[in-house]
Amino acid sequence: MAMSHEIFMRAAIEEAKIGMQTGGLPIGSVIVHRNQILGRGHNQRVQKGSPVLHGEMDALENAKRQPAIVYQESVLYTTLSPCPMCSGAILLYKIPVVVIGENKTFMGEENLLRSRGVQVIVLQDDECYQLMQQFIAANPTLWNEDIGVRGDHA
Amino acid sequence: MAMSHEIFMRAAIEEAKIGMQTGGLPIGSVIVHRNQILGRGHNQRVQKGSPVLHGEMDALENAKRQPAIVYQESVLYTTLSPCPMCSGAILLYKIPVVVIGENKTFMGEENLLRSRGVQVIVLQDDECYQLMQQFIAANPTLWNEDIGVRGDHA
Repeated sequence: MAMSHEIFMRAAIEEAKIGMQTGGLPIGSVIVHRNQILGRGHNQRVQKGSPVLHGEMDALENAKRQPAIVYQESVLYTTLSPCPMCSGAILLYKIPVVVIGENKTFMGEENLLRSRGVQVIVLQDDECYQLMQQFIAANPTLWNEDIGVRGDHA
Repeated sequence: MAMSHEIFMRAAIEEAKIGMQTGGLPIGSVIVHRNQILGRGHNQRVQKGSPVLHGEMDALENAKRQPAIVYQESVLYTTLSPCPMCSGAILLYKIPVVVIGENKTFMGEENLLRSRGVQVIVLQDDECYQLMQQFIAANPTLWNEDIGVRGDHA
């Protein structure tokens, strides 16, 4: 992978690990403008009781309000393929490039993004995958809740 | 319109007015489960400096974490046609019915929602439309920012 992709995916993975260490889902994201991280985030379902702060949304939130042009020159890094909500945020702000850690655990709206002209790069990073597999094995109900799927207890 | 749609759209309009009165965009939303409001919200771009809390997202956030089945039995009311991000949230949580105040000011992802099986009902409510028109006339830059469009100052 390109060196810059590797560096920024490492930052997203660090966020995923912070998420896990604080009792939540190990999904992290950073938004990068001209090689500078504007915002970092991780899934906040458990920590903030939030149904909307997926990793990507938390990164966008932490980047605060930005002019439209900034998003349009940015790259979003996320450890897991983006769900419909996060993909919609990418389309809203016309973020042109999305770099995804892995999509074996969950296939998000990559086809929709590509159909709207977004460049989607999937790294199939093994650490991203292992983080999710370990989490889901231990917390299947929480994972189902995060992707809107009815689990055993829902 | 059906009586229940009228009642809950009034609640969404009240939220839009709270948004306007607190210096923000006049877009409001409520999520309703079995005729009971689970969460109310309005656009929080100005008030919380948030790029992700559109009215619909704020209503979902205020409804807190819910089991998947609850979303799948709910109706989302929003004063303005939902943007890609909010439409994506509707798809993530499989909310089956969306009632929209108006889509003349902004046409959101109604076709995408319908293509995924969501029932989309547009009321073309004049008060929703007038709130937006008055706001945009006074604050064009803020409106452009909210929908990710480059304005004069972006």
